[in-house]
Amino acid sequence: MTRGMSNIVGQVQPSATLSLKEEVNSLREKYGLNIIDLTAGQPDAGPTEDVLGALLDGGRLHKYGPVQGEPELREVLSKAIEEEVGVRWDPQDIAITVGAKGGIDILMRVLLNPGDGVGILSPYWVTYPESVKIAQGTPCCMEPSGNLRPDLGILRAELRAKNVKVLLYSSPCNPSGIIYTRDELEGIAKIVKEEDVWVISDEIYRKFAFDGREVPSILSFEGVRNNAILVDGPSKRFGVPGWRLGCLAGPREVIKAVTKLQGHTSSGASRPVQYAACVAYTSQKAAEACEDMRRRYQRNRDIFVAGLNGIDGISCVKPEGAFYAFPDVGWLFGRRYEFDGREHVIKDSADFGSFLLRKAEVAGVEGAPFGMGTHIRFSLATNEEDSVQAVGNIREAVEELF
Amino acid sequence: MTRGMSNIVGQVQPSATLSLKEEVNSLREKYGLNIIDLTAGQPDAGPTEDVLGALLDGGRLHKYGPVQGEPELREVLSKAIEEEVGVRWDPQDIAITVGAKGGIDILMRVLLNPGDGVGILSPYWVTYPESVKIAQGTPCCMEPSGNLRPDLGILRAELRAKNVKVLLYSSPCNPSGIIYTRDELEGIAKIVKEEDVWVISDEIYRKFAFDGREVPSILSFEGVRNNAILVDGPSKRFGVPGWRLGCLAGPREVIKAVTKLQGHTSSGASRPVQYAACVAYTSQKAAEACEDMRRRYQRNRDIFVAGLNGIDGISCVKPEGAFYAFPDVGWLFGRRYEFDGREHVIKDSADFGSFLLRKAEVAGVEGAPFGMGTHIRFSLATNEEDSVQAVGNIREAVEELF
Repeated sequence: MTRGMSNIVGQVQPSATLSLKEEVNSLREKYGLNIIDLTAGQPDAGPTEDVLGALLDGGRLHKYGPVQGEPELREVLSKAIEEEVGVRWDPQDIAITVGAKGGIDILMRVLLNPGDGVGILSPYWVTYPESVKIAQGTPCCMEPSGNLRPDLGILRAELRAKNVKVLLYSSPCNPSGIIYTRDELEGIAKIVKEEDVWVISDEIYRKFAFDGREVPSILSFEGVRNNAILVDGPSKRFGVPGWRLGCLAGPREVIKAVTKLQGHTSSGASRPVQYAACVAYTSQKAAEACEDMRRRYQRNRDIFVAGLNGIDGISCVKPEGAFYAFPDVGWLFGRRYEFDGREHVIKDSADFGSFLLRKAEVAGVEGAPFGMGTHIRFSLATNEEDSVQAVGNIREAVEELF
Repeated sequence: MTRGMSNIVGQVQPSATLSLKEEVNSLREKYGLNIIDLTAGQPDAGPTEDVLGALLDGGRLHKYGPVQGEPELREVLSKAIEEEVGVRWDPQDIAITVGAKGGIDILMRVLLNPGDGVGILSPYWVTYPESVKIAQGTPCCMEPSGNLRPDLGILRAELRAKNVKVLLYSSPCNPSGIIYTRDELEGIAKIVKEEDVWVISDEIYRKFAFDGREVPSILSFEGVRNNAILVDGPSKRFGVPGWRLGCLAGPREVIKAVTKLQGHTSSGASRPVQYAACVAYTSQKAAEACEDMRRRYQRNRDIFVAGLNGIDGISCVKPEGAFYAFPDVGWLFGRRYEFDGREHVIKDSADFGSFLLRKAEVAGVEGAPFGMGTHIRFSLATNEEDSVQAVGNIREAVEELF
């Protein structure tokens, strides 16, 4: 085929969840398995009726809008950020993007020259390293401490050893559910300042914090404001990931550059959904629906994670937020089971995922694309029944491995 | 500010129309000028009520959708392309993007390695060279023949002389209104095959053809199907540029790569507007509204372009489609005028734009960012009154230059 495509097409990994979906469907069809799907990276609930209704008025914004995003939405976000993060960002210092994903993508293009390194704290959201590669950068993934928390010693050493220009992480963390503490963030802020790197703080899950825990932000620390960019958006909190809306808040020069590039890459996010998001951020109903989800996911965590930790060979750090459980299943590698008349060996997390699909009828996402090949990710964004049933099934299936 | 941003931030030009908007506003405020704005790159009309109403149902698509786009929309597009272009592309070979702009951006990332050249036929849409630069490629702009038509001799020579991997143009052309003929396209197709390059055909204006003219597509020529990618979308034809929807049709491998990358850069376009676009492509009302616009813009062309060509020093190629007039005003460079107590010299197209703003109270976009520093672009997507008034004002102002 003519002169071929770009090198990054070959280097980038397709989304891990998509290929899994095919395996799930094939098992459903071929063996009639009744699989509980815990792979979702999104809330199970949708937007409230008032937010939905606002789309109709929003549709009248049919002409080109400001590339940086609707001023009204940036105004509302400025207030929300001030309330939640404790720092004021002027609406001028906020840009609306095509999802948080689109925000990270455009940031990479604004910050990186080809070959520049991006430090990513493991475990991480699957898209981070791919996003870096697509922008011609080099991902530099950094191991966590034993309990999946950020390891500041490794962070400092790696930043120094490699050509790292940007640090990237999420808190609450997808996939671990860890929320970085004030102490941890203070340490990271100190290193970021000393090593003079940009830091991107993905706080898209900040409304999902369990047990009354606070979600501190690196943006609230002294002296990093000129280095730090916040990533957030309505997708998770209001149940609208399909609407493709995200936001960035950061130094004015960065937001200006984001807007300049976005003017040529997409012209920004769809206007009708920006209008509806404006309603969502100011709706009491939407706020209550979000809090209902949070409570439900916390309850699912209580059931599911306690259940997992009662199973021999599985150990799960207790999620403090987001809506995932990310247990270590490495102790089970090497175990064997039978399916469809053949013996199978669990050699890695992907094999463990296949084992669960076949024998427990539960779908999770293998850990390798999140930076931890010994782990597996399950979503807590489901109903209580499925949480109870799933962990019961996993227990039974794993017991048969011994 | 820390380690600085990427080199492309400095290299990319901000949108020419945005800075103009500021000058217009300042003149309106400072001197009370009543400026007729002919800078718009979009229809003056919006979507029909049935399309607008569909947003409400579309809003229920709140979960992540297929990155490649809604299957129903791709099905409808497959039929529309077959009808309009005369070639069938399977829905699998179509991807929905964040505007046509987002489609061109993702194509650049799929096709280019850093430094690869992209041949752009002048005059061109302002975003083309910037889109190439943002993807770390090198724009290679190619002069047209005297009447703004593609010059195949130059094209062949340039493709051979430079490391050009992709050829990019729009027909109907923004800004010239030229529609490439079958003969021209056959010639281009032959060169593309011989030189083995990709060709991107931006046909976003295909519904705006004047005088019953056909809009042939390079995709309908033998032997280029594996090299050619079509760019189109609902923005212009249905008056919804603010909704941010576009589409690509091309070789399956390219569409697969687009989808893989888009899975990490944006997750695709907003779903509610995809749903409404599906209604638009099958609505009789929407089709009629589009035809009404086309007729009106053709009438505006008749008035405006005949008027321009009656002015000494201005010469305008007759637009065959799209909704722009792109006259040559180079003969007026060097002329002087007074404004605000000072003498001003018209040295280039930007100066001519300022002159028109100040003395004719008409806003157009300077030609340099379109690749022709001797020209200026006016939009025909307005009402008849403004077209008549604007060309009258321009005549009076220019007459005073002599």
